Amino acid sequence: MNRNDMQSCIQACNACAIACEHCASACLQESNVEAMRRCIQLDRDCADLCRMAAALMARGSDLAADFCGLCAKACRACAEECAQHQHDHCQQCAQACHRCAEECESMARAA
Amino acid sequence: MNRNDMQSCIQACNACAIACEHCASACLQESNVEAMRRCIQLDRDCADLCRMAAALMARGSDLAADFCGLCAKACRACAEECAQHQHDHCQQCAQACHRCAEECESMARAA
Amino acid sequence: MNRNDMQSCIQACNACAIACEHCASACLQESNVEAMRRCIQLDRDCADLCRMAAALMARGSDLAADFCGLCAKACRACAEECAQHQHDHCQQCAQACHRCAEECESMARAA
Amino acid sequence: MNRNDMQSCIQACNACAIACEHCASACLQESNVEAMRRCIQLDRDCADLCRMAAALMARGSDLAADFCGLCAKACRACAEECAQHQHDHCQQCAQACHRCAEECESMARAA
Repeated sequence: MNRNDMQSCIQACNACAIACEHCASACLQESNVEAMRRCIQLDRDCADLCRMAAALMARGSDLAADFCGLCAKACRACAEECAQHQHDHCQQCAQACHRCAEECESMARAA
Repeated sequence: MNRNDMQSCIQACNACAIACEHCASACLQESNVEAMRRCIQLDRDCADLCRMAAALMARGSDLAADFCGLCAKACRACAEECAQHQHDHCQQCAQACHRCAEECESMARAA
Repeated sequence: MNRNDMQSCIQACNACAIACEHCASACLQESNVEAMRRCIQLDRDCADLCRMAAALMARGSDLAADFCGLCAKACRACAEECAQHQHDHCQQCAQACHRCAEECESMARAA
Repeated sequence: MNRNDMQSCIQACNACAIACEHCASACLQESNVEAMRRCIQLDRDCADLCRMAAALMARGSDLAADFCGLCAKACRACAEECAQHQHDHCQQCAQACHRCAEECESMARAA
């Protein structure tokens, strides 16, 4: 992996994890929480996978590229769901997920 | 996924994570720590992936099966390395990793 | 720390983390999800802290006892909330949290 | 908590977690790995606590401030150890830990 590309992917993963944690909590407070079920569920997964992807890259794990491939799937699923909701936190989360998916897919291909 | 199979896999993941955390710390205290480098590195990954695999199964994540497939790779690599060292913590970790790999591979196939 | 006590606390933490992950997902699927907001939020914290407490004990961290003290707070809060809901997953989670709080408090005192 | 202060603390936690993961792996590759035992052990704890502190802040957890207080202890211990080693990764990690400790202590006081 190229070091600059990895730094960029780590940043995107950390930003996505933060956006997902915030989105899940904000969704829980929405008046239409029953419509946010899937968003909250996907936010939980995406946050956890992004955090671990960043850690594996930073530690130079043999599994980092494979993990980024799986993390990208979590990001794509979360982005697709969040994009359907008009709450600011959902729109911001969708953007962070979309960007992270692209970075992680690039990392997975570079392995 | 069959519920009993999943419970069994969760237990194996938790046991493996604990064995790996303990093994990494015990390896760091060995007099031949320079020979334990790869063991420590693989223990870190395997512990993290096993913990998250258990969490994803418990929460019914869409990604649980795929994640278990990747977790099995971490377990196989760690088992192979640990089995080469005669320290008790390495032998015990190798066994926990081997068992977890089998459970996770079964989970990944069942998806 | 006594080794048997620590094993017992690690088991309680792992069981509690699993119960909380499951409870959060099950709460999200309940028809009265708007009444489960706080339960879901506390489940997320409690699961994360229990998982890390188990890891820190298993690795012999200097911070394990202090961390157990904080983990017990997460468990107490989650137990109190879950106990108010009649869903099976909430009642089971409340029991797992209650037991884990007692184990973690004992660990924190033993430091 | 002030929102800007929290963003600053989250950034410091994420940067510290990355520095610690990298430092642990780099220490494992050093020729004097036997002298790096404590650094590696503290890096593991500090990385894990920083990651979780960032998550708890981002999700608005009731425990975020208390957790930041404990995270600061992990950062202080790791900074003190890393500062004693001349490897670049140790010096950089010491700086990241020092900065994160200050941010987390400020967050803990603001609770």
